[in-house]
Amino acid sequence: MIIHKSTNPRISSFDPENFSFGNTFIDHMIICEFEDGKWGDVQLVPYGQLPFSPAMMGVNYGQACFEGMKAYKDKDGKVFLFRPEKNFARINKSASRLAMPEVTEEMFLEGLKALVDIDRNWIPQGEGMSLYIRPLIFATEEALKARIANKYMFAIVATPAKSYYTEPVSVKISDFYSRAANGGVGSAKAAGNYAASFYPTKLAMEEGYDQIIWTDDSTHEFFEESGTMNVFVRINDKIYTPPTSEKILDGITRDSFIALANKRGIEMKIEPISVKAVVEAQKNGTLKEVWGVGTAVVTSVFQALGYKGEKLMLPILTLEDSFALTLQKDLVDIQTNNAEDPFGWRVLVEKNILETV
Amino acid sequence: MIIHKSTNPRISSFDPENFSFGNTFIDHMIICEFEDGKWGDVQLVPYGQLPFSPAMMGVNYGQACFEGMKAYKDKDGKVFLFRPEKNFARINKSASRLAMPEVTEEMFLEGLKALVDIDRNWIPQGEGMSLYIRPLIFATEEALKARIANKYMFAIVATPAKSYYTEPVSVKISDFYSRAANGGVGSAKAAGNYAASFYPTKLAMEEGYDQIIWTDDSTHEFFEESGTMNVFVRINDKIYTPPTSEKILDGITRDSFIALANKRGIEMKIEPISVKAVVEAQKNGTLKEVWGVGTAVVTSVFQALGYKGEKLMLPILTLEDSFALTLQKDLVDIQTNNAEDPFGWRVLVEKNILETV
Ligand SMILES: Cc1ncc(COP(=O)(O)O)c(C=O)c1O
Ligand SMILES: Cc1ncc(COP(=O)(O)O)c(C=O)c1O
Repeated sequence: MIIHKSTNPRISSFDPENFSFGNTFIDHMIICEFEDGKWGDVQLVPYGQLPFSPAMMGVNYGQACFEGMKAYKDKDGKVFLFRPEKNFARINKSASRLAMPEVTEEMFLEGLKALVDIDRNWIPQGEGMSLYIRPLIFATEEALKARIANKYMFAIVATPAKSYYTEPVSVKISDFYSRAANGGVGSAKAAGNYAASFYPTKLAMEEGYDQIIWTDDSTHEFFEESGTMNVFVRINDKIYTPPTSEKILDGITRDSFIALANKRGIEMKIEPISVKAVVEAQKNGTLKEVWGVGTAVVTSVFQALGYKGEKLMLPILTLEDSFALTLQKDLVDIQTNNAEDPFGWRVLVEKNILETV
Repeated sequence: MIIHKSTNPRISSFDPENFSFGNTFIDHMIICEFEDGKWGDVQLVPYGQLPFSPAMMGVNYGQACFEGMKAYKDKDGKVFLFRPEKNFARINKSASRLAMPEVTEEMFLEGLKALVDIDRNWIPQGEGMSLYIRPLIFATEEALKARIANKYMFAIVATPAKSYYTEPVSVKISDFYSRAANGGVGSAKAAGNYAASFYPTKLAMEEGYDQIIWTDDSTHEFFEESGTMNVFVRINDKIYTPPTSEKILDGITRDSFIALANKRGIEMKIEPISVKAVVEAQKNGTLKEVWGVGTAVVTSVFQALGYKGEKLMLPILTLEDSFALTLQKDLVDIQTNNAEDPFGWRVLVEKNILETV
């Protein structure tokens, strides 16, 4: 790894009590370039701009995919990643589906640890605080030909993140727009999937909703995901989540919730969820909870489902009664080193890694 | 328009007999930046790299769309664009679907003419030669939040293009992969659509095909497009092409072929084309031609259709007998000022536009 430490660090001006999530960048980033069929040196450099042409294939043909993950600081100041090997596997799955080169463990896992270590002072401490980390790969070749690119950049950038506690939200069950095609790229964290979702989400917001529950594009009769989260439904005391497929992102929070539900002995069914069954359960009072899960906010609890012009209300449960909140707490306690880690999910970020590389 | 002419033009080293399409860039480009809710000045500047961060939303969330169009030089050296107002309308349709700001006529049409004029010496002359022009819009804001960006760049870059004459190709009728979802972004020239198609196309190539005929993602029973072209089928003496929808790009070449077929009195049906009907017609000998149309190559004639492991062969017709080649010639003659322009499609690029702005 090549290290160019920032000669002008901004950390002293960082106020962990008062910062803007998403556009406050830590002092460094990781970059690595792919050319002539292979990746070059992994470089840790100051965060900033690099020269790219508007003819760069990444913005012309959308060969670009990313990951979203967090580092957590416990009360003693120790820093942990959560299941980073899952993000490593997933970025390579995304890359393959978009005909991009896979990244190596050295680039992804070692790069991640070196970056988080060197900028550990940027990680805010306290409930719900974390560092949001964004590994990504994008095509950098300058060419106006719709074909697989020959040059790419892998980068890791990061921004401090605030409490994920969110108010219950209202979501619209999509009956026209969709985010994934059969035989498409829905299960990849492909850049283009997100742009495609913005306009339908904007329309839903104009109707008074916060988010969309995406349904299958052929019939709109089955739940797929919610916003940029996987979706869970509780009817009576059983939890349901749709099976992953080429249309549904294999979420790490989803996977962790399934494991935690099993551990608690909550009955968990991984099977298609029909809109009809959910609407019926709401009408007959057996629909207890519907929620989304993802790295960003862990859990987003839904208070209402919009369906064909009707607003179907959901009960708001206490932590004790809510499976969503109970499992969220179980997960957050593991992530932040407040509980045992029976699954071996936490990965400690050692100090001063760079001096040993 | 702000003009910064290149002080180091590369045109003297450009050999129109020997250049590489797609990565030979003309001396200048147009750029214009969007911030605080509005577009800034249109700038004509030397082609090259600009500073962008890997946190740029365009590569993270895929808010990026483009156009593809050509300028043609006739035998007297006069330069023409072809139906540029159609590309202008379409880039704004794409932008809207991706929740991006629309561009103005001044940025798009005036920018285009100024660029093509100043770099008119880069346009190779002769049969099939042209300048391929790429207007695009992409999100430039640096932020790690999956939401509509606040900053964008509009750019126009261009590369000289060679003869589009191509050998007949073999195409695979897709029975698993697809390029567009119902309620998705297939009708937008969204960057992400292209990346999504590369891997399936690579697999088809490994099976010996050149391209994919995309079918509807729900049933794979209906033709949608072919590669990055609209598709036409001729059974006996009737031509068919699928109606446009939110899944099918409203191609300008397609639209022009329809007009030219009508003018020639060729029977033209705009209706869904079922795979079954095409396969049956091939078996009973009534399938005369299948071809793709698009700006890049005008017409790509298919010699074989791969379907469920079978290779269905198509006759190779002469120019006289082929509707595909006849209509292609009609179109190219108009584009290159070799024929009357009854539809008013050609737009002359005046000389020295910049001195008058
Ligand atoms: C479309 C989509 N679904 C689900 C998720 C949740 O995945 P994870 O739990 O790995 O963050 C994400 C990412 O956050 C996503 O972008
Ligand atoms: C997906 C797709 N379909 C069809 C076309 C053909 O459109 P046009 O004739 O406007 O070039 C293109 C662009 O070339 C395309 O990208």
